[in-house]
Amino acid sequence: MSDTNSNSTVPETSHVPVVLIENVNPNVRNMEYAVRGPIVARAAEIDSEIKNGVKKPFAKVLPANIGDCHATGQTPITFIRQMQKERAKKRILAGCRGGSIGSYSGSPGVEVIRQDIAAYITKRDDVPSKSEDVILCTGASDGIKTILSMLMTGKTGNERAGIMIPVPQYPLYSATLTEYNAQPIRYFMNEENNWSLDISELRRAIEEAKSKCLPRAICVINPGNPTGQVLTRQNIEDVIKFAHDERLMILSDEVYQHNVYAKGSEFFSFKKVLMEMGAPYNRHELASFMSASKGFMGECGFRGGYFEVVNFHPAVKACLLKTISVKLCPPVAGQAVIDCVVNPPVLGDPSYDRFMKEKTHVLSQLKEKANLVTELFNSIEGIKCNTVQGAMYSFPQIFLPPKAIEAAKAKGQTPDSFYCFSLLEETGLCVVPGSGFGQKEGTYHFRMTILPPLEEIRINIVKLAYGSPRLSGNDLHLCTFINKWRSCDSYNIL
Amino acid sequence: MSDTNSNSTVPETSHVPVVLIENVNPNVRNMEYAVRGPIVARAAEIDSEIKNGVKKPFAKVLPANIGDCHATGQTPITFIRQMQKERAKKRILAGCRGGSIGSYSGSPGVEVIRQDIAAYITKRDDVPSKSEDVILCTGASDGIKTILSMLMTGKTGNERAGIMIPVPQYPLYSATLTEYNAQPIRYFMNEENNWSLDISELRRAIEEAKSKCLPRAICVINPGNPTGQVLTRQNIEDVIKFAHDERLMILSDEVYQHNVYAKGSEFFSFKKVLMEMGAPYNRHELASFMSASKGFMGECGFRGGYFEVVNFHPAVKACLLKTISVKLCPPVAGQAVIDCVVNPPVLGDPSYDRFMKEKTHVLSQLKEKANLVTELFNSIEGIKCNTVQGAMYSFPQIFLPPKAIEAAKAKGQTPDSFYCFSLLEETGLCVVPGSGFGQKEGTYHFRMTILPPLEEIRINIVKLAYGSPRLSGNDLHLCTFINKWRSCDSYNIL
Repeated sequence: MSDTNSNSTVPETSHVPVVLIENVNPNVRNMEYAVRGPIVARAAEIDSEIKNGVKKPFAKVLPANIGDCHATGQTPITFIRQMQKERAKKRILAGCRGGSIGSYSGSPGVEVIRQDIAAYITKRDDVPSKSEDVILCTGASDGIKTILSMLMTGKTGNERAGIMIPVPQYPLYSATLTEYNAQPIRYFMNEENNWSLDISELRRAIEEAKSKCLPRAICVINPGNPTGQVLTRQNIEDVIKFAHDERLMILSDEVYQHNVYAKGSEFFSFKKVLMEMGAPYNRHELASFMSASKGFMGECGFRGGYFEVVNFHPAVKACLLKTISVKLCPPVAGQAVIDCVVNPPVLGDPSYDRFMKEKTHVLSQLKEKANLVTELFNSIEGIKCNTVQGAMYSFPQIFLPPKAIEAAKAKGQTPDSFYCFSLLEETGLCVVPGSGFGQKEGTYHFRMTILPPLEEIRINIVKLAYGSPRLSGNDLHLCTFINKWRSCDSYNIL
Repeated sequence: MSDTNSNSTVPETSHVPVVLIENVNPNVRNMEYAVRGPIVARAAEIDSEIKNGVKKPFAKVLPANIGDCHATGQTPITFIRQMQKERAKKRILAGCRGGSIGSYSGSPGVEVIRQDIAAYITKRDDVPSKSEDVILCTGASDGIKTILSMLMTGKTGNERAGIMIPVPQYPLYSATLTEYNAQPIRYFMNEENNWSLDISELRRAIEEAKSKCLPRAICVINPGNPTGQVLTRQNIEDVIKFAHDERLMILSDEVYQHNVYAKGSEFFSFKKVLMEMGAPYNRHELASFMSASKGFMGECGFRGGYFEVVNFHPAVKACLLKTISVKLCPPVAGQAVIDCVVNPPVLGDPSYDRFMKEKTHVLSQLKEKANLVTELFNSIEGIKCNTVQGAMYSFPQIFLPPKAIEAAKAKGQTPDSFYCFSLLEETGLCVVPGSGFGQKEGTYHFRMTILPPLEEIRINIVKLAYGSPRLSGNDLHLCTFINKWRSCDSYNIL
């Protein structure tokens, strides 16, 4: 083995790397993605420390930072995993070149899977869907980035592409716009009205942006991430009218379409509403995104996703297909998983009973946790949480005492980051600061998934309510405000 | 179901889509990727025509356009597929969160797999590799795009990023540079010397480019795609010295490192050579790419790839890790496949004998085809083919008669596209025109994979040699020049 050090004749200090952080692409350098940010890195460190015998006031970190279902204990749906062995060998494999899942598929995906997805959408919406409008992708993120990249103008100043995104939003959107050097046009969700989407706010946002950029599209996340709201049909109609009037393509992120919990809430796809509105709206351009990572299946690791393009001009669609061909194809195993999602067992199939039982179990557990989380948070003084109507997240507002805000500033952290780091260190609960998703100036939040087992969620929120001895001490005064809630005496955790 | 047509009150012609091809991102619009270009689309049409009973002078299309092993008949390696069932359940699954392959992995990949890759590289090169420098990705393409994106400057004019790429090159590079609005600095491989890489040509290329852009990196494909050459160790040393002198990061695309066939040719990784050169070269920055899609395994559909970053500045590496976190993680099943590649059965393992037999069989078949293809092509008048030393492609030069060039121009096609379309229509052989990879002005080539079964390759090249009645007719005079080779009388194909 060559000893590279002994060969060295140049002193350490003389070496200047070709690439320093200062000359990394500034758009890449400025990207931020809090879901896997420094707090998650710290959580991993803490887990290592525990493994190495360092004593903590908790036995393990509870990851509630990312919508990663199986990682937090959800059992994979049997049908999906069996399909990998059995059904894939027949129908799907017949659709793969050379009969192997190890062949590249067509760039938009395996043809039979595109057909199954179109059939699923048709049934879901009672509006026809065509397989040639369905494009598989490497998780929904990949599809969203592809469509956004097409909308860039390659220009600067007021001709730079502007994309409307909600605040708070899943930070894929803001990170991608930073990477593409586009102008985010931020519209604020209405926290006072359970994170509803107000059209007047869309108007305010776009009017303010018009001098700065060329608005090209509006992104809507429904059910909401991180905010968990489910849009009403009327609301969706209003968004479509707005997009039509302002000539904005609609990107509807509908990856949580199976995750609706609240009484009275119902999922309507933008495609269905747009088509049923009739002319001129039924010819408006829409891309709708779905994933195998969420819903009841939670098969995140397979990176299966798809999108449907609606009313795309043929030349634009041809350009889209050309663009994705450079990436060759999305993972075929992930495509097969998506097929299970859109083409599940039906009454009479041998696997039907077990599938329905497992699906119902997962969704009812999530529903229970959605209710529990809202209720528990709202029983804590200093925390206010809207109803988790859908998706997998709660996004409570935290009211921090001035001393905590000062302490955060002194440490160079945002107050919510400071809060979440303390929460992690003291209780082991890993959540993401609201600043990673965007929030109104002067308000503080965090995003907590509702994925961990019910009892672990309950215990951790109780810990949060009581605070821990160190946190509630006189030094920081961070958690004294939440130390008043005393209704869970059965948990002897202090 | 809503009848959207009957609802329409606006006449067809009044509708103007929000996005027309004219206002698609010009960088996206200008991307080109010939490996899945119009000729492949036509091949799919022909296959449909045959299925629908249209008579053709051949029974089926022979896809030789893309390095898709299983699609063209290669049997998956048993060990890799069994691992999906058995080994994954133990070691790999233990490395997955919640013990499920359906969880997101860390963004750089599953930790144990990164360790296995580092061990593989260490053994391959006899130079240490660290798992924290190994990053898994969604096929090598994904990794290459990630590194290139970091090197962009976000500026225009002579501060625009320039990236050196070979000509001919795998068009991922040119397409990505177009997408990123970077300046390709094209260096020509020396066809007269079996596609060798001449340092004098690198110098010419960079000197000419310096007034137009800021050169930031050099991409080298070794073994070459589409050119099949294998660089000598001396050649690699010279490239490293050049890159060091010009302060260019090196991107070494080494996805064909298992595919070396020619006597006297040997694969040396850039990492090994760079490290063994000693100072100052052993501190130069390098990213080296590998894939599960090529080699003996050919598991393209799993989209498994990785890259090793060498000598990256810590802040730059941290930025890289942040960037990939937005994509969450590469497909975990693909990561597991990569693990099989780098951590195969060893002598004494129950699966060892079968694994070695299958691996040897695939590689020896490829070697035989590499030799056969070179030999057959060179026996045809009007075709000249360099030795296929490695990778999976031949890239023969075709000498077209002036009438064929005129006929192509009249059709608005490049002469090589015209030739390849004719070849497809007349013989069913689907290859990619050289213009999709770049070639010297006035020369014409095509890329043909060596993946189809040996006999099918032989038959198709014979067809090519004889031409077909229509092609060799008086109308086009396209193939008369190849109609002279008469040594394969045993194939009665005309």
